[in-house]
Amino acid sequence: MQKIGFIGLGNLGFPIAANLLKAGHQLKVYNRTREKAKPLEKLGAILVDSPADAAEKGGIVCTLVSDDAAVREIANEQFLQALGQGGIHVSMSTISPDTANELASGHKQYGVHYVAAPVFARPEAAEAKVGNAVISGDAAPKERIRFLLEDGFAKNIFDVGPKAGSANVLKLIGNFMIASSMELMAESFVLAEKNGLDVKAAYEMLTTTLFTGPVFRNYGAMILNREFVGNPAFKASLGLKDIDLVLETARRSYTPMPMANLVHQRLLTVLSKGRRDADWVALATGAINDAGLK
Amino acid sequence: MQKIGFIGLGNLGFPIAANLLKAGHQLKVYNRTREKAKPLEKLGAILVDSPADAAEKGGIVCTLVSDDAAVREIANEQFLQALGQGGIHVSMSTISPDTANELASGHKQYGVHYVAAPVFARPEAAEAKVGNAVISGDAAPKERIRFLLEDGFAKNIFDVGPKAGSANVLKLIGNFMIASSMELMAESFVLAEKNGLDVKAAYEMLTTTLFTGPVFRNYGAMILNREFVGNPAFKASLGLKDIDLVLETARRSYTPMPMANLVHQRLLTVLSKGRRDADWVALATGAINDAGLK
Repeated sequence: MQKIGFIGLGNLGFPIAANLLKAGHQLKVYNRTREKAKPLEKLGAILVDSPADAAEKGGIVCTLVSDDAAVREIANEQFLQALGQGGIHVSMSTISPDTANELASGHKQYGVHYVAAPVFARPEAAEAKVGNAVISGDAAPKERIRFLLEDGFAKNIFDVGPKAGSANVLKLIGNFMIASSMELMAESFVLAEKNGLDVKAAYEMLTTTLFTGPVFRNYGAMILNREFVGNPAFKASLGLKDIDLVLETARRSYTPMPMANLVHQRLLTVLSKGRRDADWVALATGAINDAGLK
Repeated sequence: MQKIGFIGLGNLGFPIAANLLKAGHQLKVYNRTREKAKPLEKLGAILVDSPADAAEKGGIVCTLVSDDAAVREIANEQFLQALGQGGIHVSMSTISPDTANELASGHKQYGVHYVAAPVFARPEAAEAKVGNAVISGDAAPKERIRFLLEDGFAKNIFDVGPKAGSANVLKLIGNFMIASSMELMAESFVLAEKNGLDVKAAYEMLTTTLFTGPVFRNYGAMILNREFVGNPAFKASLGLKDIDLVLETARRSYTPMPMANLVHQRLLTVLSKGRRDADWVALATGAINDAGLK
């Protein structure tokens, strides 16, 4: 049992916080919209009124919020002083590697450790604790927070070294690869359909032989069944934000990525059509619509 | 034991023919360059002097050659008459679905069945009989030639229906998906390298969680280790031919495929640099060179 602060109770944050409570940890939780935190009280969570109130001297606080600006706003002077010497900020959001590196060095001035631990999991996988965690930062704090990843959402933990931003680079790559995989499946399935090949048979063959990973299996089924809107597990607007970060990171490091440009355009198109209820797999509608289908 | 004709003893044809001989079948083999067929004599093959000589009335002949033109040249009147009523042409080459459909109806005039059975396997997988076969065509001849796929190279056989070209559409989609996967890994690994993330750690994480299929595992390792040239299992020039067919099929069916255009350009670039000894995974050098690496 450990005392933990948890900030950000969105689609992912909520099930992770709930898991930590169920595992017996004491949680102080903070969410900008207080309503969303309410149901956790039944599990024993203490609701607090500011990010700094979630922190204890030398303790651990997790943040899981929507973007770079939100993390920067939380990790202000007040917050860092509250965490203080030996405290650890476990930053689970998908943010820019550069922001992570900056925050890490800013935290050091207050004696606070910054551990990057972006979440590789859709909400249902996090809830079932079969997600993947990737961590980067200093060795001792990484060791100290492992229990939290295991109790919160992760089946596997991958340590990618001391540089704070490394885990974020890997998270961005992962999401870029997922988005690109959706596009290549979409183009493939459309070509199949327009040439009289049974698309379901093609999906079955490909995802049981060459492309057996969960990305192809799960998103492939969603594309096959045209499950694009309704109750998005990962919104197109969030996907777009992640590919924004990929291109921004590519831009700063002079890395031409034509495929990233393509999926970026696809996500822009989803949002240009006002589909705010779309899952990011709706990027597949680009290839489908271009081909005159549906 | 069956009498079979086998035409085309390239990188894939040779190990498949050898497997059929080892399984106890009688094989008449033909190859344009007779020298390449010679070693099969030791295994009991009978070398013949023309494609038609490989055929027997009502028998089975496999062809596995480099392109549409080569299949058309083989399947001439003389050949079809030699195969005759009830004969089966098992067409294993990666060719255009339209060509397959045309050939199938042309064969019918001679009473010959056309079964499309493109090979999903690199040569070493074919040799080890762990490849995948996809078949399309009429039901009875498909049933009659299953043994040949199992004895020749295939662990799994996927039947995609009666339309001759369907198996070819799936083969093209499969190769397009492989080529695109190489590109997305190349862009990802380059972004990792330029941002200080250990690329090997990224590869391990991604290919043991989200992207577990053999395409990511095997080609990913080749990209990681820069294994682009030397002894290509599948030449860049053949990969280019396959993506040509993808774009041609997309063109005829009005299917815009921007990702296919991208990998096509990548393969053209490999060949523009005169790398005739390059494996098609060398398409990854596009992203690597663009980023100023190596």
